[in-house]
Amino acid sequence: MSKQENKPNLPTSVMTGFVELLPAEQLLFNQLKDTIRAVYESFGFVPLDTPTIERSEILLAKAGGETEKQIYRFTKGDNDLSLRFDLTVPLARYVSDHLNDLVFPARFYHIGKVYRGERPQKGRFREFYQCDIDIIGRESLGLANDAELIAVIAEVFKRLNLPKFIVRINNRKLIIGLLEEIGVSAGEQAVEVMRIIDKIEKIPLTETKESLLSLGLKEDVAQKVMDFVSIKGKAVDILRAISQLNIKNENFVKGLSELQEVVAHLSAFGLPEDIYGLDLSIVRGLDYYTGTVYETKLVDYPNLGSICSGGRYENLAQNYTTQKLPGVGISIGLTRLFSQLKEAGLIKVGGATPSRALIIPFDDRMAPRAIEVSRYLRQQGINNEVYFEEGKFKDKLSYANKLGVNKVIIIGEDELEAKSLTVKDMKSGEQQTLELDELTRVFD
Amino acid sequence: MSKQENKPNLPTSVMTGFVELLPAEQLLFNQLKDTIRAVYESFGFVPLDTPTIERSEILLAKAGGETEKQIYRFTKGDNDLSLRFDLTVPLARYVSDHLNDLVFPARFYHIGKVYRGERPQKGRFREFYQCDIDIIGRESLGLANDAELIAVIAEVFKRLNLPKFIVRINNRKLIIGLLEEIGVSAGEQAVEVMRIIDKIEKIPLTETKESLLSLGLKEDVAQKVMDFVSIKGKAVDILRAISQLNIKNENFVKGLSELQEVVAHLSAFGLPEDIYGLDLSIVRGLDYYTGTVYETKLVDYPNLGSICSGGRYENLAQNYTTQKLPGVGISIGLTRLFSQLKEAGLIKVGGATPSRALIIPFDDRMAPRAIEVSRYLRQQGINNEVYFEEGKFKDKLSYANKLGVNKVIIIGEDELEAKSLTVKDMKSGEQQTLELDELTRVFD
Repeated sequence: MSKQENKPNLPTSVMTGFVELLPAEQLLFNQLKDTIRAVYESFGFVPLDTPTIERSEILLAKAGGETEKQIYRFTKGDNDLSLRFDLTVPLARYVSDHLNDLVFPARFYHIGKVYRGERPQKGRFREFYQCDIDIIGRESLGLANDAELIAVIAEVFKRLNLPKFIVRINNRKLIIGLLEEIGVSAGEQAVEVMRIIDKIEKIPLTETKESLLSLGLKEDVAQKVMDFVSIKGKAVDILRAISQLNIKNENFVKGLSELQEVVAHLSAFGLPEDIYGLDLSIVRGLDYYTGTVYETKLVDYPNLGSICSGGRYENLAQNYTTQKLPGVGISIGLTRLFSQLKEAGLIKVGGATPSRALIIPFDDRMAPRAIEVSRYLRQQGINNEVYFEEGKFKDKLSYANKLGVNKVIIIGEDELEAKSLTVKDMKSGEQQTLELDELTRVFD
Repeated sequence: MSKQENKPNLPTSVMTGFVELLPAEQLLFNQLKDTIRAVYESFGFVPLDTPTIERSEILLAKAGGETEKQIYRFTKGDNDLSLRFDLTVPLARYVSDHLNDLVFPARFYHIGKVYRGERPQKGRFREFYQCDIDIIGRESLGLANDAELIAVIAEVFKRLNLPKFIVRINNRKLIIGLLEEIGVSAGEQAVEVMRIIDKIEKIPLTETKESLLSLGLKEDVAQKVMDFVSIKGKAVDILRAISQLNIKNENFVKGLSELQEVVAHLSAFGLPEDIYGLDLSIVRGLDYYTGTVYETKLVDYPNLGSICSGGRYENLAQNYTTQKLPGVGISIGLTRLFSQLKEAGLIKVGGATPSRALIIPFDDRMAPRAIEVSRYLRQQGINNEVYFEEGKFKDKLSYANKLGVNKVIIIGEDELEAKSLTVKDMKSGEQQTLELDELTRVFD
């Protein structure tokens, strides 16, 4: 049998719901990831890198039905294992395990892949990057931290050069308190109300109200909920309007005072008023949020949905430790964000190489000189590569073009003899002859 | 039931064979990883990030028995899936799938986690980072590339500040040719001979020879193998000794000329002779290497084994495409290397934060000023954080100590009034009073 016949007909394409990028895209993706990481570190967050595989009992300790269906679960030997579906559960386990080795408040960033066997659809991935930060206190954690996370998000999106964005802030205690006040007690019904409120933006207001009524809420009760979540305006106006409701419910009062404190901190962080706003309809689906909640939207691209969300939780690790660990965190779903930004034309793919120069020796005799030039540039901090293959000069230039590299340094017979270099700018097509020690100036 | 009783007794420790690090260790690990990546990019290698999960048929297309036993394999829906056990197979699949989108020679670096359900033992991990580079040609690929990878390795280890290391180089065609020449034909027996040679360093020479004899090799044949792999000396001397053997076997002649060419290129890369050497006993276990092979050792820590290895393969993706794709690659097993270096005391764990300063407001009234200082430092490129929690000043300084942060900036009543800052150096204990715009100089 020939080799060709031997080759099984294997599917080499990436599987549905999984992502792999071409070089130019991957370079851009990594640039985004690096920017996020740099901003996280600039605020003193510490890297965390937990295993992708966890014991299933850990991951499923609190997971709901949807998570259980989506999880990648398997056995190896006697072990019941699963791939992590988020980064919060591994963080909770990690912190519980290292309570005595960590310093609190602990500031972690966690950038890694998570796995959800979702039905494939646009914008849904089975393997995707999350970029989380969390600040975790022991017993208590000040509300300045809730404000700080907004400053972190704002800095990330500024550095990513994203168009106008807004971080929408709420406090979950407000809606919980309001519902208690008007007779919808905590539990199944309140959860259902919040689920409806969560979708308010995507659905006509009349339909939202009807959904509330069909839950069994009385007309005036449903109307009170609708009125409340529809309060709009500047942060200061909304805070005033809420306090004028004069609701004495304990949760409500606490939620209001927390929200006031967070907003008060925001100005110290130098955040302009147009990048954040209060929105009383933000509740976030996850029921572990107990206070501040956030969502972030691109103002001119509302259909992208929330590109960064999070909130405050009273107890990060109640399934793993009796120690009370309040925290606040946010998460950027980077794989989804990248795909959305690319599709909306908000980020632009560049060259397919980290090299800023390609050095082309005319033939093998010029290879040592090419290597010398390459080493020199590298010592100057300029990424570059040498084209070592034999072939026509035209093909070598074509390689440079396909790579999208900016500068080509040509070493032919003349250059070798004169110890000079011909530098070609691939955009302008201009050529100049330079000495080795003059070379760096074309990279300024 | 109280919450405490509710808490299931879940095992929060990291599973055997998996690694998770404390903050100071993780920061150091990432520093190593970043250095490797920066060096790879400085040579123009392009990042690749393939999914952790692959179709089992892809991963097992060529895998041997050991791999099949170790692999994490599972089904999800109708799909037979596995976690990648190395980065070469995904690379091969990726390149096969994107033949027309890539520019050749393609230069990839691939840093990611791989999975092997090995029996746990010291230095063996079930999840670990590999840091690979590969240069892949279409139809052909020059030997300068084989030399260049040694330059890359050398630069990595220099930048990691590792002690004296040596890259040991060989060409597999030499031993294959020699065996053919002396009547040990390619196939099972030759593979067994190579397996024995591969372990020559760990076993007394007499035992190695006995193993060869027990394979059925005649005394003089076994002796010839022993004599060959024992040729030692400088590269130039070894090359002369091999060519004086006057062996006409085609593989042997080709192996010699390839090795000569690689060595000739090495000096152009500015590699001092003491960081590389030829070693005819290096064969590497993997049978897909067909030419140059490398191993790297720390000279004074031989028991660490090879910390970086690789080689040339004739055909990267023969299981996935009929296109001939010759390549050359190396891999650093970073998780193992990190654990070895730490144990040998060759790398030193530093502070537990990326922050270069901790800003401590005396109480809530100073928080806005603390945030102002924090923002100012961040704009100057100085990572820092604010300690927002209430508490005794002593406890705040203790947080700084535990973090291992170098500078603490204190803002009390006096500082707030005078618009000054007290900067404490945590090592020397020295304190000085500065204005905001004088602050950066303590970070020089």
